[in-house]
Amino acid sequence: MTESTTSPPASAALPIRGARVLIAGAASLVGSHTAEHLLRAGAREVLLLDNFAFGTPEAIAHLRDDPRVRIVRADITRLHELLTATQGVDGVLLLAAHMTLGFAQTPWQAIDVNVRGAQNLIEACRLHRVRKLVFASSNAVYGYGPGVQGALHEDLPLHSVGAPPAAVLYGASKIIGEQLCRQAWQQHGLAYVALRYSTVYGERQHYRAANALYIMDTYDRVRRGERPVLPGDGSDSKHFVYVGDVARANLAAFESAATDVAVNISGVDPITTRALVQLVLDYCGSRLTPQFQPDPPGTVRLTAGGAFHIPHDKAGALIGWRPEVPMREGVRRLLAWREAQART
Amino acid sequence: MTESTTSPPASAALPIRGARVLIAGAASLVGSHTAEHLLRAGAREVLLLDNFAFGTPEAIAHLRDDPRVRIVRADITRLHELLTATQGVDGVLLLAAHMTLGFAQTPWQAIDVNVRGAQNLIEACRLHRVRKLVFASSNAVYGYGPGVQGALHEDLPLHSVGAPPAAVLYGASKIIGEQLCRQAWQQHGLAYVALRYSTVYGERQHYRAANALYIMDTYDRVRRGERPVLPGDGSDSKHFVYVGDVARANLAAFESAATDVAVNISGVDPITTRALVQLVLDYCGSRLTPQFQPDPPGTVRLTAGGAFHIPHDKAGALIGWRPEVPMREGVRRLLAWREAQART
Repeated sequence: MTESTTSPPASAALPIRGARVLIAGAASLVGSHTAEHLLRAGAREVLLLDNFAFGTPEAIAHLRDDPRVRIVRADITRLHELLTATQGVDGVLLLAAHMTLGFAQTPWQAIDVNVRGAQNLIEACRLHRVRKLVFASSNAVYGYGPGVQGALHEDLPLHSVGAPPAAVLYGASKIIGEQLCRQAWQQHGLAYVALRYSTVYGERQHYRAANALYIMDTYDRVRRGERPVLPGDGSDSKHFVYVGDVARANLAAFESAATDVAVNISGVDPITTRALVQLVLDYCGSRLTPQFQPDPPGTVRLTAGGAFHIPHDKAGALIGWRPEVPMREGVRRLLAWREAQART
Repeated sequence: MTESTTSPPASAALPIRGARVLIAGAASLVGSHTAEHLLRAGAREVLLLDNFAFGTPEAIAHLRDDPRVRIVRADITRLHELLTATQGVDGVLLLAAHMTLGFAQTPWQAIDVNVRGAQNLIEACRLHRVRKLVFASSNAVYGYGPGVQGALHEDLPLHSVGAPPAAVLYGASKIIGEQLCRQAWQQHGLAYVALRYSTVYGERQHYRAANALYIMDTYDRVRRGERPVLPGDGSDSKHFVYVGDVARANLAAFESAATDVAVNISGVDPITTRALVQLVLDYCGSRLTPQFQPDPPGTVRLTAGGAFHIPHDKAGALIGWRPEVPMREGVRRLLAWREAQART
C-alpha cells in the first residue's frame, strides 16, 4: 500500500527562524495568533492565505505592516490557487475548515472545504516538496455520546451513536484529513503533525464555536445584570485551550522532529460549566448567582453527562509542548479584549 | 439542528410490487442480483444506473430483455444526471462506491464517488420525494485493529489506530454517507435504511474485494494442482455474506417500515481462513493440504488476530431479514459459476 517515491528526510524538524510559512485559514482566531508567534520566532516570510468567507481582514490588520507578511486571497477548494501559493514554502499550517455548525447549515461547502480542500492542500505541499505540514485536527475525531468519557487518549475511536449528524460529519471529515496526511507521508514522504485541538478560545474569538461562545454570552448577560444560565446541572465538563497555547503548539509541531503523529492539544485543566460561569462572575466582580436551565426533552448533549478530560501528555513527549495559560487567566484575557472591543 | 420541511410519512414501507426502483452502481455483483430479485418481486420498473467504470454491461446483459428494465448511463458525481434519473422513482438503492483499494490507488475519485456522489444522490432523492433510500454501507465503519474483535455490534465506533490510511478513509466515507442519510431524514423526512454489508461474494464476483477474491485465487491454485496458501496460521476469522442474501436484505429494507437505522448484513456464520480453504478443497475433491505462509515483517493485518463475528440480529428485528445460504453452499455456487465462465 506504500509507494514511496521520495525518501523522507532524516529529521522532520522545520526551524521557524528563516522559514517561509503559509497559514491556510489565516484570518482567524488561531491563524492570527500563530502568525504573531511565527513573526516573533524569526520567520522569513509569513503568508496569510484566506478566502475571507469566515475570516475578516480585521483579524490580521495588525500584522499587515510587517514587511515579512503577505496576504494571499485564495480558496483551498481551488487546487490551482494553492499550487501557486505554496511555491517555495517551507511549512504549511492548515486551519481552514468548517465546524459542526457548517456541517449542519451548509454541508456541501463544509465537505468541499474539509475534505477536498485538505486533499488539495496536501497535494500542493507534496508537489512543491513543502518540508512540513501541520494539520489542525480536532477532538471531534472521538465523536460524542456515552462512549466519550474519562481520559480521551489519542487512540480513542470515533463514537457516533446518538450524536447529531453534523457533529459526526465534522469528526469524520477531520479523520479523513488526518488519514490523507498519513497517506501522503507513506506514499510521498510529506512530513506532518496532526494537532487535535480542544475548544480554542481567546482574543479575537470568532462566532462559529458554540462552546467558546458560551463564555462571551455569559459575560454579556452578567454585564446586563442578568443571571447566567447553566444548562443541565452545571456539572458538564469542558476542556478548553487558550489560543496562545495553540499558537505555541503549532510552532512546536513545525520545530520538533516528529512526523506521522496525531496529538491532543488541550488546556491546563478541564473545567465544569459551573466553575466556568464562576470565573466570568469573578472577572465582572458580580454577586449574581447562576440559574439552572434543565435540558428540554429530546435534547441531544454533545458531551457525555460524565466527566471527561483530554490528556496532552503525548504532545509533551512528541513535540515538547504543554499548555501554560490556566482558564482563569485565559478568560481574563478574552473578556478584557471583549471589553476593549465594546469601547471602540 | 432539525428543520423539518415535510412531515415524514406514517410508514416508511415501500412495497416492491408495482414500484419503480433505481439502483445506482447496478452493473455490479450486488446490483445485478438485486435487480433480479426486484423483477421477481413484481417491480413495475427497474432502472439500472451505472457509469460503467467498474461495472460491465455483461453483468446486467441477462436482464436487458425484460421490458421493465431500463439502463441509465450516468455518474453519481454529476448531480444534474441524477436529477433527471430519479424523477418519478419510488425507491433508490445506492451501491456505487469505491472500496479500500480505490482509496489507496485513486483517492480523488474515491472521495468524489463515496462522499460527493452520496450527497448528490441523497439530494436528488429528497428533491423528487423518493419514498425510500437504501444505502449500502459496510462493516468498514468499525475500522480495523485490536479494538475490532468479538461481536461487532452496530454501536461499535470507528477504530483507526495502526490501520492502513486507505482502509480508514473507506470506513470514514461510509460513516459520512450514513450521516448524510440521517441528516436528510431529520431535515427533510427522506426515509432510509443503511445496510452494513460484510464481505459479499457470489456469482458474477468482481475483482475489487480482496477477501472474496481470495476464494477464487485459492480455487485457481488448486485447479492448477498447487497447494493453497494460508496467510498467518489460518485461524483468522472472516465473515462473508452470500450475494443472494444481500439482495434479499435490500428488498427487505425497502419493504420494512424501518427508517433511520443502520444494521449489519452478514452471513449465517463466520469462518476461519483455514475452514474456507477446506471448503474449496472439498468442492474440487482435492487432497492437497494448505501451506502456511507467515506474514512478512511489518505486515498490517486488516482484521485483528482474535476472532470476530458480525451479528445480524438487529437486521432480523428491524427489517425481518436473516441470511439463508451457508458458506459451503455459497462457495459451491461461486465456484460453479467460475467453472462455467472458464468454459465459455
